[in-house]
Amino acid sequence: MFEKYYSDRIKKTPSSFIREILKVIQDPKIISFAGGLPNPISFPKDELKKSMDNITRDFGDKIYQYSTTLGLDSLRSQIAQRYKKIWNMDIGIDNIIITTGSQQALDLIGKAFINKDDVVMVEKPSYLGLLQAFCVYEAKFVQVKLNDDGLDIDELKRVLKNDKPKLSYLIPNFQNPTGLTYTLENRKKIFNETKNQDMLLIQDDPYGELRFENKPRIPYIGLNETDKNIYLGSFSKIVTPGMRLGYAIAHPNIIKMLETAKQASDLHSNIFSQYLISDYLKNNDLDLHIEKIKNLYKSQAYCMLDSMEKYFPKDVKFTHPEGGMFIWVTLPEGQSSLELFNKAIAKNVAFVPGDPFYVEERNVNTFRLNYTNADNENIIEGIKRLSEAMKEK
Amino acid sequence: MFEKYYSDRIKKTPSSFIREILKVIQDPKIISFAGGLPNPISFPKDELKKSMDNITRDFGDKIYQYSTTLGLDSLRSQIAQRYKKIWNMDIGIDNIIITTGSQQALDLIGKAFINKDDVVMVEKPSYLGLLQAFCVYEAKFVQVKLNDDGLDIDELKRVLKNDKPKLSYLIPNFQNPTGLTYTLENRKKIFNETKNQDMLLIQDDPYGELRFENKPRIPYIGLNETDKNIYLGSFSKIVTPGMRLGYAIAHPNIIKMLETAKQASDLHSNIFSQYLISDYLKNNDLDLHIEKIKNLYKSQAYCMLDSMEKYFPKDVKFTHPEGGMFIWVTLPEGQSSLELFNKAIAKNVAFVPGDPFYVEERNVNTFRLNYTNADNENIIEGIKRLSEAMKEK
Repeated sequence: MFEKYYSDRIKKTPSSFIREILKVIQDPKIISFAGGLPNPISFPKDELKKSMDNITRDFGDKIYQYSTTLGLDSLRSQIAQRYKKIWNMDIGIDNIIITTGSQQALDLIGKAFINKDDVVMVEKPSYLGLLQAFCVYEAKFVQVKLNDDGLDIDELKRVLKNDKPKLSYLIPNFQNPTGLTYTLENRKKIFNETKNQDMLLIQDDPYGELRFENKPRIPYIGLNETDKNIYLGSFSKIVTPGMRLGYAIAHPNIIKMLETAKQASDLHSNIFSQYLISDYLKNNDLDLHIEKIKNLYKSQAYCMLDSMEKYFPKDVKFTHPEGGMFIWVTLPEGQSSLELFNKAIAKNVAFVPGDPFYVEERNVNTFRLNYTNADNENIIEGIKRLSEAMKEK
Repeated sequence: MFEKYYSDRIKKTPSSFIREILKVIQDPKIISFAGGLPNPISFPKDELKKSMDNITRDFGDKIYQYSTTLGLDSLRSQIAQRYKKIWNMDIGIDNIIITTGSQQALDLIGKAFINKDDVVMVEKPSYLGLLQAFCVYEAKFVQVKLNDDGLDIDELKRVLKNDKPKLSYLIPNFQNPTGLTYTLENRKKIFNETKNQDMLLIQDDPYGELRFENKPRIPYIGLNETDKNIYLGSFSKIVTPGMRLGYAIAHPNIIKMLETAKQASDLHSNIFSQYLISDYLKNNDLDLHIEKIKNLYKSQAYCMLDSMEKYFPKDVKFTHPEGGMFIWVTLPEGQSSLELFNKAIAKNVAFVPGDPFYVEERNVNTFRLNYTNADNENIIEGIKRLSEAMKEK
């Protein structure tokens, strides 16, 4: 009875498949590899409580009052310092806007930069939250195949030439959903192909800090070489997602447009949590905390990979992430991961079928596994059950 | 250099005039009646700190983890209970979505229900944050004059017939910017005129609890008589705005579309603050707290009104609010409140000129005063300065 009121954009926007799955699998009997949740034992609860005591004592009313749209200066300054230190980026607080989780950064970019039918280049497969966010602004997506070393350069060239994307969205580190990381060489090639293109390049990096293989960080595409990059980051995977704090780093003119978009969207992000995270960063060694998370996730990733080697049919392929939260599985040609999903649920184990990560393909033979939110015992048991589901006729 | 990337919608969206003004008047010498800030002495700081201690002790990881898009069940249930008690509304948690401040509810409604050039009926003058939020979705606004008793019914009839609005946005209690309240009779007339219209009616009510004149609450337009109403509420003016928690109440089918829009926008609102406010409501008497705020604002409102009676030129008119946060001033015909603004700033007193509250009119002779965020001494001094500015040639 309300259909006549719905906007065209919302009719086209898929409800998040993952969030629907998460509702289905509330049953505690189910071992879930479906979500993208950090392991709760990684939350620095005592330190955050200490920071609450600090800021309620030190900042009076400011932690409860309305605040500025761009975000708390001290937090923006801490972010700038971190990116200067790690990446030698020449940035200040004018390059940074705090967002309500990095999902909001995607919404704001959509608001500020996408007209109906504007072409947006994304990976194939891509983050479904991005597909959802930009679908709202009626973007036209083109997908470029992701290989083990990063974007497929031939496809990239073809898309740049034929489709002339206005925006591009990439997750170069421990990609969601595949867990793949672009090599340095691949990144250089991408920069060479894109640098003269009239295109803004978004690099979303929620997992970049979670490199558990002991190899050096790989610089962003076009780092310190272009003004057309938008870098997204988040405290969700390294401190706490519940506080909904992410950020975008870009040229001040881009930040200004995101600010206007944010005024209209939620005025500003929760200021209490901005003071909280700022105090946490001031009084704790974030790198030391990240080190603990990495050790935890490394053990969980290896446990899952080892179990997959041991139990999965040999014609099932999967990625070997060097960090982050996900493994991407490819079933033999012609098999459907949606069908496998139903069999798996019957055996009380869940994952995310590949379909929602693609713009067009359906009934694909790929799916996503998350290893960060289950203990090793459950990982082994879950993979066993999944293997049995695979072997069922 | 980035103009070519901007979306059409963001080019049309005005940056919030108020937020720009707030930047200008950081100077502590300036007495500001410009913002819409609650008085910080009204924040229940000790009680909120107590609730922090409670929830960090009782809820473990849940206050830091990802959560559901619709919001915390216990908080939604508390909201439902309150509306049942006050308004005898037959609602449950399926009728409620928690939003990142009630500004986000406006953004979500725009996302879910507005196509380019859809007609939206608003008051004249209207809340500028709404104009900004819906401008993003390229709504076509029609304004209906606001009289002392509410909407002008003749204009309303004409607009309903000629423009056939799909949505309507009203603030029936202590309206922003005018401070006016629709009478019961006016509300009944509006319901009679609109009930057979294919139109969703949004009633935004951030100030309704702040009725400091001792008269009974006036029911919403069409309360308990239609499924086409969307009610918006907020904890910003009665507990704390910094936590960014508002909500929408509507038919479950409407809530479902807002949920899809919210998934794409920020996944979910800060879950820590949802637990916090829920605990605060459980362990404190909100009505008792609101009583204190009302007494405070009553004294401030009367102080400002008395000063205005005493010092303003007699040909300057103004509203007499029975609650809320604002007084609306009308200068003699032909005078410009923008010009007065510049003179006032020179005398270190600030307000919001009327222009941004109108869709088309510019250089209007009206402006908004806020009395909640200054003490009585400053109110008297500020009104004196403003009167002097008015008398300047």
